Amino acid sequence: MSVTAAPGFVAGGVACGIKASGAPDLAMVATADGRPVTAAGVFTTNLVAAGPVQVSRQHLVDGRAAAVVLSSGNANAATGAAGRRDARRMCELAAKGIGADTADVLVCSTGLIGIPMPMAALEQGIPSVCAALAGGEAAGTAAAAAIMTTDTRRKEATATGTGPAGTTFTVGGMAKGAAMLSPAMATMLAVLTTDAVVDASTLQQALATAVAGSFDMLIVDGSRSTNDTVLVLANGQAGGPAIMRQGAGYQELVVALAAVCGSLAEAMARDAEGATKFARIVVRGARSHHDARLAARQVAGSQLVQCSLHGEDPYWGRVISECGASGAFFDPEQVDIAYNGITVCRDGVACDHDAVALRSAMSEHDIEVTIDLRTAHGEATVLTTDLSPAYIDENMRTS
Amino acid sequence: MSVTAAPGFVAGGVACGIKASGAPDLAMVATADGRPVTAAGVFTTNLVAAGPVQVSRQHLVDGRAAAVVLSSGNANAATGAAGRRDARRMCELAAKGIGADTADVLVCSTGLIGIPMPMAALEQGIPSVCAALAGGEAAGTAAAAAIMTTDTRRKEATATGTGPAGTTFTVGGMAKGAAMLSPAMATMLAVLTTDAVVDASTLQQALATAVAGSFDMLIVDGSRSTNDTVLVLANGQAGGPAIMRQGAGYQELVVALAAVCGSLAEAMARDAEGATKFARIVVRGARSHHDARLAARQVAGSQLVQCSLHGEDPYWGRVISECGASGAFFDPEQVDIAYNGITVCRDGVACDHDAVALRSAMSEHDIEVTIDLRTAHGEATVLTTDLSPAYIDENMRTS
Repeated sequence: MSVTAAPGFVAGGVACGIKASGAPDLAMVATADGRPVTAAGVFTTNLVAAGPVQVSRQHLVDGRAAAVVLSSGNANAATGAAGRRDARRMCELAAKGIGADTADVLVCSTGLIGIPMPMAALEQGIPSVCAALAGGEAAGTAAAAAIMTTDTRRKEATATGTGPAGTTFTVGGMAKGAAMLSPAMATMLAVLTTDAVVDASTLQQALATAVAGSFDMLIVDGSRSTNDTVLVLANGQAGGPAIMRQGAGYQELVVALAAVCGSLAEAMARDAEGATKFARIVVRGARSHHDARLAARQVAGSQLVQCSLHGEDPYWGRVISECGASGAFFDPEQVDIAYNGITVCRDGVACDHDAVALRSAMSEHDIEVTIDLRTAHGEATVLTTDLSPAYIDENMRTS
Repeated sequence: MSVTAAPGFVAGGVACGIKASGAPDLAMVATADGRPVTAAGVFTTNLVAAGPVQVSRQHLVDGRAAAVVLSSGNANAATGAAGRRDARRMCELAAKGIGADTADVLVCSTGLIGIPMPMAALEQGIPSVCAALAGGEAAGTAAAAAIMTTDTRRKEATATGTGPAGTTFTVGGMAKGAAMLSPAMATMLAVLTTDAVVDASTLQQALATAVAGSFDMLIVDGSRSTNDTVLVLANGQAGGPAIMRQGAGYQELVVALAAVCGSLAEAMARDAEGATKFARIVVRGARSHHDARLAARQVAGSQLVQCSLHGEDPYWGRVISECGASGAFFDPEQVDIAYNGITVCRDGVACDHDAVALRSAMSEHDIEVTIDLRTAHGEATVLTTDLSPAYIDENMRTS
């Protein structure tokens, strides 16, 4: 169960011919009755926002949506006015399929940039995916599969929380993303649904907080894409009083959204193109959380640190150097660095350690690099991977 | 002729045993008479500055220096108080060798981070390199060879200029750098000498301007190192009136320094670890030069753009996406992008082009990516390379 975990939502996925391989490439998530519910979204900060991002932003102005239609294999980015028209047409087709207004449908696309959308395929495909909409696990799985591009695995997650007056709500979500991954935000699409009772501005605030602590803390190759989108629909079927900002159940909603987003973000890092290692870069003791984020992102995004991880080389010199280049302030001679708990640098210089244990620690698939700046209490964790020749193989040619 | 091109300077290079390979690893540049002359320097902005950077900054406070001693194979970075003591001892040994004051010697080191300097080798080596100091081409070549690390070629350059009252001055320089290359500044060392007549603050201003337009516009892997240093010594032997800031000969001095720095920066990009392509990212039509730099650096530093260059794939979608992520402001639907003069994107969308000519253009070793943002007149050029599996091979293990 993922995007269909909360009651009152349906999903589906089909192959409509965008991908030459014939793999599933068109997904939809909708309310079971086709009526609009509370919705919120976080979009790429890239100035070159794709057509579907521009259209979804417009359609979210009223904080309501009945469905999301998602295509994979073509990003519909850098396609100009024709791209916006095509994105709107996708919404119109989806709206017709479920009996909703066009302005209540959101749209996401992912894939290659700069290529016109193959609209003939979508004219046929969107009615098909509407016909395939269903509740339950298989439907959620079909949708999660249809948004994959270079992903090798579906990415799905669920969480539950306690709302006001003892009610219980569920959050389910699905995502795609395997490259062009960088904070603010990763190249990725994610759709979440929940039965929580919440108004649009509260939901927007809760989603933004959840994204800041999850998708924004994932950095693989430092590229922010044209299409990044995280959407959430909340149908209120959990019942009971509404969750108000900072009121009863609000923190629980943020935690549940963050749990789903965090789980999806970790799944993205674990499925990143060509990666052979999964790493958590943990910065502690920074002057502020902001400084901790600066340092953790700079270390996580460093090609040279990623090369060292690939070679299982505990070369902490690159780690401290990236901290120094990050803009975070600290005393370079009060820094401790550890790999999977084995401290290799203390007070900013090399320290004695068990070389055999360290070699064994570096051979693990999961590596935690802990950097204590020993200045104050700022903390941040960023997820990343190693950089391998397979990443280059996968990205050197688009065809 | 390079660092010994201007009259009155001597240089030398020897192997002293820092590098296990036995390759040359210790260089020196000095005034022929051991007397201090006008000097200026630009150093890394990394908070984790290596011991030699800290010591050289102190020794440059008076704007005068008699010599620079440079070692390769060990960066003497993240070595704490012992590292500063070792760097000062290197200056002391060099000063003794040429009869100068310790405070008039500058010091640079490059190599691995976090390892104590092998001072026994330097106690023997620095007297040897002092004994080897000589004028002329062979001595300059020996010094340029002794600062190489993963460089495969020496990097040397010269230029001449016209000073006040019809005098002529010469600028010569040498550099090293093949990875950890990023603006502000590249992981690199460079030493320049000139016989121009100029005071220290004017020389500092001229050098900073030259570096901003050359070394700062080189980005290979986005890592700013702990040891980056560019130094210039000016002995005034060209004679005639002094060059004053913004006065006669000043612009000529900046141009000559920039010519040498630019030539050395290009040599670094052409010798970058694992690179199979050399690329110029040219941004025009930006709102400001600042915006042009933001966009050009973001495109040049993009792993995904570099992967495309490696695959000879004219995937301009990644180029426009990086421009959009750079912070530069422009209209995404007024962007033109060309590879070696062949326009593939016009008005922000794909345009017709000669596919055969484009394939041939992409197969060139040198690729110029031109991005016209068509907003105003801001321009910038940044040098970069492709990203190849050989880069990862070279950087995945330090030993």
